[in-house]
Amino acid sequence: MASHGKAQRTRERLVRAALDLCAAEGFENVSVGRIAEAAGVTEMTFYRNFPTKESVLLDDPFDPVIADAVVGQPAHLPALAAVAAGVRSAWGAVETADLDVVRDRLGVVAQSPRLRGAMTQSTAATAASIGGALRARGAAAPDAEIAAAAAVAALTAALMAWAQDDSTALDTAIERALRILEGER
Amino acid sequence: MASHGKAQRTRERLVRAALDLCAAEGFENVSVGRIAEAAGVTEMTFYRNFPTKESVLLDDPFDPVIADAVVGQPAHLPALAAVAAGVRSAWGAVETADLDVVRDRLGVVAQSPRLRGAMTQSTAATAASIGGALRARGAAAPDAEIAAAAAVAALTAALMAWAQDDSTALDTAIERALRILEGER
Repeated sequence: MASHGKAQRTRERLVRAALDLCAAEGFENVSVGRIAEAAGVTEMTFYRNFPTKESVLLDDPFDPVIADAVVGQPAHLPALAAVAAGVRSAWGAVETADLDVVRDRLGVVAQSPRLRGAMTQSTAATAASIGGALRARGAAAPDAEIAAAAAVAALTAALMAWAQDDSTALDTAIERALRILEGER
Repeated sequence: MASHGKAQRTRERLVRAALDLCAAEGFENVSVGRIAEAAGVTEMTFYRNFPTKESVLLDDPFDPVIADAVVGQPAHLPALAAVAAGVRSAWGAVETADLDVVRDRLGVVAQSPRLRGAMTQSTAATAASIGGALRARGAAAPDAEIAAAAAVAALTAALMAWAQDDSTALDTAIERALRILEGER
């Protein structure tokens, strides 16, 4: 456990350093070496934690949390409503410090065309995770994939809109997507 | 009108030739020159109609038809339901010959990783068109973008699943996505 805790803290320091440097100077202008230095580790340690510079900003620790929350939704809910309720519940349980990371990460990603492109792969992983959760609730395979793709696309669109207009709160942007998925708008 | 008709027929011949050649030999193995030759036109005529080899297979003549159908849905429908109803109505009006083109195109696209990647841009155009339709119905800009992204993602997932498993009818695959968007599954 102690060693897991240390490894986890190293990852968090690398993410935090990458976010701060990229927010200040732009993703394209920051090297892996400088991120590692700012986090107080070697470049080799960076690459042991993250295969690429992109991945330190796209790593999403919430996928399993959301998947668990979707599996736990009442059986009577149709697929999109179950995903929306699961995301709402998982999001409500995120701690404030982690929220700051989410917010900063989205801000940096939104500014970089290369990161926005790379995010497609990250969202595919999130969709696969949600699709698995829907199948665990008994959805047929194509239904699960379709609903997961729709939910992830809705959330991504809301987050990108939020990142480009900071007059809206992040909570509001996410709730907007969830309401749409629930057929309420 | 006559000249418009001739230009339209040339485009259709190029699409048909590209589909037949790529279905038989694979997108990567077919040159623009051979597509043009099979359609009875010059390569220059090909490029006057389509900027790239990808675009002859990704060109989507249905975007404006779907957008019109979405705008025409009853005002009380929420965004996802309006898109689903619009797509259902537009799809029902597609002629049989055009359906064959849609079906063959999806089959070719699903087989080619490069085309699947390029389809992201084509679906972004479809999403923008549907987003415009939702705004025309009075949706706020972020809501319209979110719902359009969700709907296009759901349809794309359904079509890709269909293209990889031809035991399902195309109509069934599309209806599956529409039902999910309507919150019925």
